Amino acid sequence: MPSSSWAQSSRRWAGTRKQEPVPSGRSDVCQDIETIHYKYTEFKGDPMRTLPLALLLSLLTGFAVAQSQPQLNLMPMPSSVQQGSGMLPIAQSFSVSVTGTQDPALAAGVQRFIAQLSRQTGIPFRPKTGEAATLTVRAEKGLEAVQKLGEDESYQLAVSASGAQLAAPTSLGALHGLETFLQLVTITPSGFAAPAVSIKDQPRFPWRGLLIDVSRHFIPIDGLKRNLDGMAAVKMNVLHWHLSDDQGFRVESKTFPKLAGMGSEGHYYTQEEIRDFISYAHDRGIRVVPEFDTPGHSRSWFVGYPELASGEGPFTLDSENGPSSVTDPTREETYKFMDKFVEEMGKLFPDAYFHIGGDEVDGKFWDSNPKIQAFKQAHGMKTNQDLQAYYNQRLQKIVAKHHKIMVGWDEILHPDLPKSIVVQSWRGQQSLATAAQQGYRGLLSYGYYLDLMWPTAKHYAIEPMSGAAASLTPEQKALILGGESCQWAEWVTPENVDSHIWPRNAAIAERLWSPQDVTDVKSMYARMRAVSLELEYLGLIHNSARDRMLQRMAGTADIRALRVLADVVEPVKDYNRWDEAKGPIDFHAPLTHMIDAVYPESDAAREFSGLVEQLVKSEYQDRAAESQIRSWLTLWRNNDAKLQPLLKQSALLEDNVAISQNLAMVAAAGLEALDYLDRGQPEPELWKTQQLAVIEQAKKPAAGLLLMMVAPVEQLVEAASNRPR
Amino acid sequence: MPSSSWAQSSRRWAGTRKQEPVPSGRSDVCQDIETIHYKYTEFKGDPMRTLPLALLLSLLTGFAVAQSQPQLNLMPMPSSVQQGSGMLPIAQSFSVSVTGTQDPALAAGVQRFIAQLSRQTGIPFRPKTGEAATLTVRAEKGLEAVQKLGEDESYQLAVSASGAQLAAPTSLGALHGLETFLQLVTITPSGFAAPAVSIKDQPRFPWRGLLIDVSRHFIPIDGLKRNLDGMAAVKMNVLHWHLSDDQGFRVESKTFPKLAGMGSEGHYYTQEEIRDFISYAHDRGIRVVPEFDTPGHSRSWFVGYPELASGEGPFTLDSENGPSSVTDPTREETYKFMDKFVEEMGKLFPDAYFHIGGDEVDGKFWDSNPKIQAFKQAHGMKTNQDLQAYYNQRLQKIVAKHHKIMVGWDEILHPDLPKSIVVQSWRGQQSLATAAQQGYRGLLSYGYYLDLMWPTAKHYAIEPMSGAAASLTPEQKALILGGESCQWAEWVTPENVDSHIWPRNAAIAERLWSPQDVTDVKSMYARMRAVSLELEYLGLIHNSARDRMLQRMAGTADIRALRVLADVVEPVKDYNRWDEAKGPIDFHAPLTHMIDAVYPESDAAREFSGLVEQLVKSEYQDRAAESQIRSWLTLWRNNDAKLQPLLKQSALLEDNVAISQNLAMVAAAGLEALDYLDRGQPEPELWKTQQLAVIEQAKKPAAGLLLMMVAPVEQLVEAASNRPR
Repeated sequence: MPSSSWAQSSRRWAGTRKQEPVPSGRSDVCQDIETIHYKYTEFKGDPMRTLPLALLLSLLTGFAVAQSQPQLNLMPMPSSVQQGSGMLPIAQSFSVSVTGTQDPALAAGVQRFIAQLSRQTGIPFRPKTGEAATLTVRAEKGLEAVQKLGEDESYQLAVSASGAQLAAPTSLGALHGLETFLQLVTITPSGFAAPAVSIKDQPRFPWRGLLIDVSRHFIPIDGLKRNLDGMAAVKMNVLHWHLSDDQGFRVESKTFPKLAGMGSEGHYYTQEEIRDFISYAHDRGIRVVPEFDTPGHSRSWFVGYPELASGEGPFTLDSENGPSSVTDPTREETYKFMDKFVEEMGKLFPDAYFHIGGDEVDGKFWDSNPKIQAFKQAHGMKTNQDLQAYYNQRLQKIVAKHHKIMVGWDEILHPDLPKSIVVQSWRGQQSLATAAQQGYRGLLSYGYYLDLMWPTAKHYAIEPMSGAAASLTPEQKALILGGESCQWAEWVTPENVDSHIWPRNAAIAERLWSPQDVTDVKSMYARMRAVSLELEYLGLIHNSARDRMLQRMAGTADIRALRVLADVVEPVKDYNRWDEAKGPIDFHAPLTHMIDAVYPESDAAREFSGLVEQLVKSEYQDRAAESQIRSWLTLWRNNDAKLQPLLKQSALLEDNVAISQNLAMVAAAGLEALDYLDRGQPEPELWKTQQLAVIEQAKKPAAGLLLMMVAPVEQLVEAASNRPR
Repeated sequence: MPSSSWAQSSRRWAGTRKQEPVPSGRSDVCQDIETIHYKYTEFKGDPMRTLPLALLLSLLTGFAVAQSQPQLNLMPMPSSVQQGSGMLPIAQSFSVSVTGTQDPALAAGVQRFIAQLSRQTGIPFRPKTGEAATLTVRAEKGLEAVQKLGEDESYQLAVSASGAQLAAPTSLGALHGLETFLQLVTITPSGFAAPAVSIKDQPRFPWRGLLIDVSRHFIPIDGLKRNLDGMAAVKMNVLHWHLSDDQGFRVESKTFPKLAGMGSEGHYYTQEEIRDFISYAHDRGIRVVPEFDTPGHSRSWFVGYPELASGEGPFTLDSENGPSSVTDPTREETYKFMDKFVEEMGKLFPDAYFHIGGDEVDGKFWDSNPKIQAFKQAHGMKTNQDLQAYYNQRLQKIVAKHHKIMVGWDEILHPDLPKSIVVQSWRGQQSLATAAQQGYRGLLSYGYYLDLMWPTAKHYAIEPMSGAAASLTPEQKALILGGESCQWAEWVTPENVDSHIWPRNAAIAERLWSPQDVTDVKSMYARMRAVSLELEYLGLIHNSARDRMLQRMAGTADIRALRVLADVVEPVKDYNRWDEAKGPIDFHAPLTHMIDAVYPESDAAREFSGLVEQLVKSEYQDRAAESQIRSWLTLWRNNDAKLQPLLKQSALLEDNVAISQNLAMVAAAGLEALDYLDRGQPEPELWKTQQLAVIEQAKKPAAGLLLMMVAPVEQLVEAASNRPR
């Protein structure tokens, strides 16, 4: 796991905490990405595709072109959509028939489809017999027993006012088509209905993954299952299961029982649970790729098997209570261990790909071991990179012996490894391009780190084929398999993991599925809002868990004032939470503060920001926008008085006193600025200076939170003095 | 099932639909109950009990008497509470030890306790070893393999600043004590803590039940399990499982497989599920009493076994597609069937009590069968009641033969039945008293019908020992075992069943557990609000499901304006929804309208009503109250303009157009009335006449909903003209 543990190792073990500059290797996570101020880029639909103008317009405006052509809330956007006229009513008489291949997985998929349609519409559908089906589904070929990379995932879906037909070469495509149908269904003045539409669809990339780290904080199987449901809804097809890291080894091994037995505090998955989980994923067309990170990020292995380490034990999961280390690549016993281990895990996880991590190996553990130094010298290795390359080559042979293809992070790239391996890049498109130029396949995760708390638009703008990758040859481009979003788990619990992943992950899923020119940010946000609702009906708790967390902090169900504050803040970005934590992370601490409960992105602030832009653009003439701005500002200004008593009675809320005050003060400044603008009266210089001081203060994070309405209010205050009169 | 099916039989089968008067036998559900206008009765605590004055005061005022004595949000209120000083911190170091009997059920209860404490506080507790436990639990005797009526359920709980001790004669009492501890834990300025307190507690009645009807609408096992969790939290100890009725037979029978096979549309519980469910209930100290309603309410039996019926088949579950009937008590085969059936079900359900229904037998099915008439004549029976008594006597012998005690509704009461039977009264305290005078044990359900959509205070005021029961001898009073709330399922789905039961059921649980003099309504509402939050952490969805239902209606996650309307309406009361439905119920129809989503009781309206009372009482001088009233009225007046566009775009919302307009108009009238009051200006007579016409119109139900803020606004309008100037 590249991101957070890098910070952990370099920050924790370096002894001194560097505040700035951000060290290299990490900084490029943020570089090259233009800050997006919700200035919506134009939709670059290519009219040569069969995406008709009407749809483009409806996407752009958010309004139906005609009553018969409502906005399509599809995410990911299909590669080709043509809207027809009329709508297919979804009522109690709705039914589905399946023809073509007899595939139990597809039959189960249809049952899930009906259950979800029932949750979305509230209609209790009953089995029908002897009637013509409303939706006919036909797949030519069933799911493979073990899903393969690059299978045909295409489908065609035609909906008319009288019925719908879904056809696909494989069950996999049919499952995707069912998800599209679910997204088409909407409430109308005459009931639920799906608009007439003709869709031809297939993914842009064959590998569209989500990494979930279950080592830093354990997520029980049911929490993961609902996330699989979410992945299926947005057509993601790989769960990258980060199963081991310094803080915990989460898989039962029968060959090496002390791995989970001593390395998990009892929080691990049994092999039976894992088989059930893989079957659950398979039913949804999702491959499960396990990652066992080695030779770094592996302290949890050493608790039970200290002989694997490069240094002396005893080791514990908690770095505060003992030494850390990395795997010793110089002992033959290490490879005997890995051989048996990969054999067992290779059988448990049927997927062809096997992730060995390989990232962020801290060389100091090798440097301080004389035997390892001697080994390097004896074998003519100059650097620790050379030693890791040696380890990787031997490991790759073991992985290949057990019929698996090795995947690893950027650092494993080395010319001595066979071209069959896959390199996953957390460093950027450049290293992906470098790998492709050398003939290696790659996956992009750079820019898709969900733990960085970025706004969706920033992830959405990350294009695997941009930057260095843009100038690759077609053959080289074909080596870029897709990408994976990453949910590193330093700051999540089963309660808030969903909100860290969703709905933002739906936009990343679209980036990996939809045509490259689907980039309109306004449309993305509108459609993501719809898919977010769909995901809650599926059982995800990304929206609903927040209220319970706020109620816990408040000790009461009446959280109206607390919600107003929560709606307009975001957690600090990138790795600033670690900087603020001022010390190593306590992985057993409760994650129950405001920073843990709020959404990574504030919808209210984005809406407010858009209104201010609209007002500025109208040269302060847009009365409707101004009225809405005043309404927001008044709500915020008045909120602090209601909230303060609550904040003071709870240990979980007291650190929000300042930010709540800031919200009120900044809102008051905004209201006064509007008054000056309305009166055409010049702002007193002193007033402006005071307000800008308040704003400057309010920009600073408090309790790990950013007040997201400050920047647009600053715009108003500046405007009130700059505006020509 | 007395309530709804009576209406069904008499309304549906009588051919003509009577609008009024409410027929006898039903009207007395509502008689004798004073309407409660939130005029809080005084707390009648008896100082001879060890309930100290400080607690009484804190309960009355809702404020802590001193910082060290916060309000105790306990429900049901224990029989004796003494507050100490200081608080026990609940932090990561919290631990529990169990001594006394080695009872796996108690050990499992402690695990659930820790899991729930973790959900409430967000603290990830870890197993501790070698430390002194924060909470010690001691029970002298484990749970019985099959729980018995009248077991010792008492416990003592002592909490100090340094630790807590829970002691009980049985695991049952210890489980109750753990629930009390969970309710003590609250957030404070220094973290989570439980106040120092000394509690001695035991129930007033030994039978505290909840009936759930799963025949009219099927509720899957997981929906029932979360309701068991809720029952345990408020110390209810009997789930009365209404498993069969005209609309469905919900239990797998191996002896008579066509019962569920043909009588359930596939919606039934397997015997394996039932055994698992009973074990789940047993772990929580809850008995499961099955009800198989006979000889009435039994159409679902006849679908597979038409020979049991008094009339000709074929029968279906849907009364629109075929005849109805009742069981034929004159055929010997009927008793052979019942003998085998009771034998099988008696083994499946281990509880000593077996409910045979026996209510609302429609005699016309016997009257129209010549053989049954001949039988009556041959046996000298004058009435159908005589015939039912004959049936019940034979049935009772069968039930007793299989070692069970028969329970039935009021109608089974007959001097020829042995005194061992139990009579459950849906008719009132009078029939309970009559039974007790004849030496029969009884249960009260009259007044606890949750499907009547009453405000909690109205249920809370129903006292089993009041009315005719008040004048019973002590020996006769002892025959009144307790009561049961009843969730009849004409209008519920797995989605909204929780909100029909909770939190109101917690107040009924208190009526049956706590001392008779615990009657303060204001305190009840405050404590119920706290327990409601606790129940959501347990997994109940009584609060959270509403938002999803509103979002479905709206087709968007932005339901702010819709929530304002939903917050201030209630479903029509008693059986008026049936009157309005204008026809037989379609049990397969979606329940997805506003009436299905809103809470039975509006907190906002109650709060508003209290503010108006406060203003009136202050002779219109209470500026703070007036300001809050204006704030509510302004919100409501402005809401309609925001809401109308949403209402018109959804078939599920369009019937709310008028009620949303009414809300705005009535709110506007209230604001104008306040203006007149403030100015001390006389109201123009014409204005008043107009406003009262608007109010009169707004009082009428619309879309099955009542606008609950109308009455207090009417008070304001009347006051503005009546007030002496």
